[in-house]
Amino acid sequence: MQTLDVALGERAYPIHIGAGLLAQVSLLLRHLPQKRVAVVTNTTIAPLYLDAFVATLAAGGVSAVPIVLPDGEETKDWTTLNAVFDALLAHRCERKTALVALGGGVIGDLTGFAAATYLRGVPYVQVPTTLLAQVDSSVGGKTAINHPRGKNMIGAFYQPLVVLADTDTLRTLDQREVAAGLAEVIKYGLIRDLPFFEWLERNIDALVARDAEKLAYAIERSCANKAAVVAADEREETGERALLNLGHTFGHAIETGLGYGNWLHGEAVAAGTVIAARVSQQMGFIGAGDVERIVRIFERARLPVTAPDLGHDRYRALMGLDKKVEGGKIRFILLRRLGEAFMTADVAPQTLETALTQSVTNA
Amino acid sequence: MQTLDVALGERAYPIHIGAGLLAQVSLLLRHLPQKRVAVVTNTTIAPLYLDAFVATLAAGGVSAVPIVLPDGEETKDWTTLNAVFDALLAHRCERKTALVALGGGVIGDLTGFAAATYLRGVPYVQVPTTLLAQVDSSVGGKTAINHPRGKNMIGAFYQPLVVLADTDTLRTLDQREVAAGLAEVIKYGLIRDLPFFEWLERNIDALVARDAEKLAYAIERSCANKAAVVAADEREETGERALLNLGHTFGHAIETGLGYGNWLHGEAVAAGTVIAARVSQQMGFIGAGDVERIVRIFERARLPVTAPDLGHDRYRALMGLDKKVEGGKIRFILLRRLGEAFMTADVAPQTLETALTQSVTNA
Repeated sequence: MQTLDVALGERAYPIHIGAGLLAQVSLLLRHLPQKRVAVVTNTTIAPLYLDAFVATLAAGGVSAVPIVLPDGEETKDWTTLNAVFDALLAHRCERKTALVALGGGVIGDLTGFAAATYLRGVPYVQVPTTLLAQVDSSVGGKTAINHPRGKNMIGAFYQPLVVLADTDTLRTLDQREVAAGLAEVIKYGLIRDLPFFEWLERNIDALVARDAEKLAYAIERSCANKAAVVAADEREETGERALLNLGHTFGHAIETGLGYGNWLHGEAVAAGTVIAARVSQQMGFIGAGDVERIVRIFERARLPVTAPDLGHDRYRALMGLDKKVEGGKIRFILLRRLGEAFMTADVAPQTLETALTQSVTNA
Repeated sequence: MQTLDVALGERAYPIHIGAGLLAQVSLLLRHLPQKRVAVVTNTTIAPLYLDAFVATLAAGGVSAVPIVLPDGEETKDWTTLNAVFDALLAHRCERKTALVALGGGVIGDLTGFAAATYLRGVPYVQVPTTLLAQVDSSVGGKTAINHPRGKNMIGAFYQPLVVLADTDTLRTLDQREVAAGLAEVIKYGLIRDLPFFEWLERNIDALVARDAEKLAYAIERSCANKAAVVAADEREETGERALLNLGHTFGHAIETGLGYGNWLHGEAVAAGTVIAARVSQQMGFIGAGDVERIVRIFERARLPVTAPDLGHDRYRALMGLDKKVEGGKIRFILLRRLGEAFMTADVAPQTLETALTQSVTNA
């Protein structure tokens, strides 16, 4: 087991990464303020892990209220959130009853937001079971639900007590889910860790084939990058954290434009990152060979590298609702070079136009 | 104008109290991160103050998106909150677009919660226009919406940038709203400020008659008490802030039990405080004369001192969902003496029974 720390002062917490952690209840127990939790999960995860997890908790003297939600990005909305509140109230969960998010990014985001707002805030724990959640969404305290007009529009910055990433759970993932997680892994290399990107180029096939040792390393290095960024800019105020959004301005537009749940988040991020790379190339920051390397690694990870043709107007309208918009101007995360990202509002309309055309007509 | 500070470190903010402050836009301007705001108000307040307030903002170079909601505690729910989100997104409000809560406690709680969660948090300003909001709900960062099962169950601790209490707005209040505000004013005296309670006993008739100077003093002293408590225990962790909840465990049960909007919050708090006083008397902390003084001052303030007969079982069930419940035990705020409150879970069922019987059969 590896342990990393998210250095956030009184809100600091550990990320434990390793095989078989779901059975190591002591890693959770020391953080719980009460010997009772509510385990929020979904209909895909529950048959695989819920009973064993609840039994492990019981063996540690912790009683669990299970809350099983439907699966899918399209369920990350107020209706599902309210179902969680109803269950918490029906079971008289209290301010010291921690919520446990057992699942992927949707469960983590939604459970975290429920924890941020139930009784004005209760503790919660992230137990991510997808690669995407283990490398990205479970770390850093971004919680949210979607709004029909835009992804993650309603939410809170709210940090968990601990993150428990059991790498054994990756064995039961769909291949498509593995690929989606790799999109965020590759992102860390692109924005701030060139040696990691180069390691990924050498090892992407092994990761796709779920080589356990290499996956564990990729998760650790991703979490280390994420933890460093979050510690420096918890609430996305200085701009550093915004760099984690490489590919996301376009990616969120794809997700919202197609309807939540059609593309996985990681898939949309991959295609969005290619657009961002093309904008960066148009503006002279990176070369055609760099774009080619990015396209190639996503392809090898079985990720889409061309975006759906929503129409340029629709892309612009959707991106105009991005959370990074300031003074009416969209702020883009671009690549200054491989391994270094930056944020700018200064992208010429024609440049965006060209990059979008290249990215959707390649389909 | 009087200015008090809520000492919360990097979340510290001023409370300005005085006549004509709605026209002093400079008090707001210095806090705004962007020359654009969304003003959230309701159909009662809008005809009285919205146009003039928006014009004042415009004169200061600030454009305003007005969002006018229905009025009443029964509207403090997800549906109304979502209407705010829809309007914010339709007008492309950004992370630096502050929300302004122009109204009473419902508008303040709901707007504050919208600010806490829109785009994971945007700045907001409290411009309370009722006595209750000026002395209590606008200060301290408690934001929330109601859930059918319980009052203020979903919310966040989220502090405003500034509070602007224009005492001129009290002139347009219903008498019932004045009384409701006085319930919270009297509360401060009871829980931590005996000299203030005695001042209130001498001046309650003048306050009911809206003597401007005396109202201003009561608001200042209430806010000073509130600010001190909030600074000591922002998130209700040490128990000190919970003392502000005197009468609220019973009061929230009354509000939820009768259906939101039937009794004003302050009315329910007054009747609830009488029950808490009777429990305190039963347990030997205060005397019959003390209870009589409490009943008398509420009566002079035109507030209810008897509670609706929901049935003891229903009272217990509703109170079992109180946010202060811990380990399944209801924690009560009681009076050790006039001017000093404390929290305890140790109230014998028979004592509660007797106090409830005395309080509802007196009707």
